[in-house]
Amino acid sequence: MAKRGMLIVLSGPSGVGKGTVRKEIFSQPGNNFDYSISMTTRKMRPGEVNGRDYYFVTKEEFEKEIASDGMLEYAQYVDNYYGTPLKYVNEMLDDGKDVFLEIEVKGAMQVRDKVPDGLFIFLTPPDLMELRQRIVHRGTDDLETIDKRMKKAVGEIEMMQNYDYAVVNDEVPKAAEKIKTIIRAERWRVKRFLPDYKKQLGDALK
Amino acid sequence: MAKRGMLIVLSGPSGVGKGTVRKEIFSQPGNNFDYSISMTTRKMRPGEVNGRDYYFVTKEEFEKEIASDGMLEYAQYVDNYYGTPLKYVNEMLDDGKDVFLEIEVKGAMQVRDKVPDGLFIFLTPPDLMELRQRIVHRGTDDLETIDKRMKKAVGEIEMMQNYDYAVVNDEVPKAAEKIKTIIRAERWRVKRFLPDYKKQLGDALK
Repeated sequence: MAKRGMLIVLSGPSGVGKGTVRKEIFSQPGNNFDYSISMTTRKMRPGEVNGRDYYFVTKEEFEKEIASDGMLEYAQYVDNYYGTPLKYVNEMLDDGKDVFLEIEVKGAMQVRDKVPDGLFIFLTPPDLMELRQRIVHRGTDDLETIDKRMKKAVGEIEMMQNYDYAVVNDEVPKAAEKIKTIIRAERWRVKRFLPDYKKQLGDALK
Repeated sequence: MAKRGMLIVLSGPSGVGKGTVRKEIFSQPGNNFDYSISMTTRKMRPGEVNGRDYYFVTKEEFEKEIASDGMLEYAQYVDNYYGTPLKYVNEMLDDGKDVFLEIEVKGAMQVRDKVPDGLFIFLTPPDLMELRQRIVHRGTDDLETIDKRMKKAVGEIEMMQNYDYAVVNDEVPKAAEKIKTIIRAERWRVKRFLPDYKKQLGDALK
């Protein structure tokens, strides 16, 4: 049996540019992971292809998947369901392939519960990291703006705590490169390969 | 106050090539970390420079450092002491610089106890990873050889469990590049920067 693959989850606050960074990563050659295609009940838009952009299904089909525990994660936005079918992800992982998911924060937390040894990367807006500088150099922003920014930052920090890594999306190619560096490094983490290695060694001796 | 630096520890079984890999890393430009020079009581060899290769001290001076808790780690080999003076390491870390140590396994375990948030990288000999293949394709090695290798492997696996990452030293430039990738990725680990970031944000609001 092949070594089971690693589940890579890219998430972050809505509007941070997750999709753009994911496309940048996948536009480059030499990736050892596959992108998991989401399932949705929303209508196909011009130019979209079923099985490439999404798996387009009916509301009834989607709810059947939910009822039978067939979704790794899902959420409802504006009357439509969006989610990740468990079946394809498991097939790829069992084949020893690493699987890349780009999903919303709520979905990522569902995955974290089900796949605790996944690799969880949070994409943060540059303004979170610039915030401290802004606060230190007061006078350029009024108090209300600072207060609003602070509340947003606190919310983002709360989210970030549930992730392994956080990458600032200041420039898309830079963020993509950092994420690829993280994925490479994680392959050499003792906790990832040692249990499997010990098992293989044990099996070989039987 | 600057963010405290990260302590990077490269270790591994004796003879694996830690020194060669460390020199390869430091021969390249663009490293954001400094190498911590060890202290020893052994005699200076031709070509060695005090304060570059080692801090050369007397046995009495070294034992005074041990007695005053001045060593981050130390060991005795063939009547000589070798170790890392805590003072220089702490000065560099407090300055916000990352510090790189290349030390023996016993020393690395002393550091792990004192600096649990250090980054611990284990350099493994290629034969550990080849071992399973060898066992599977029996016939090329006799049983005694396999048994000896197994015992050595089990010992190395026991050591490895105390490290964050393990890198195979199959080719020196490759191993050096992997270690640099790991160090880069670790900078974006949430558990490393978030406590400090939250503290800075809190301080800025005071």
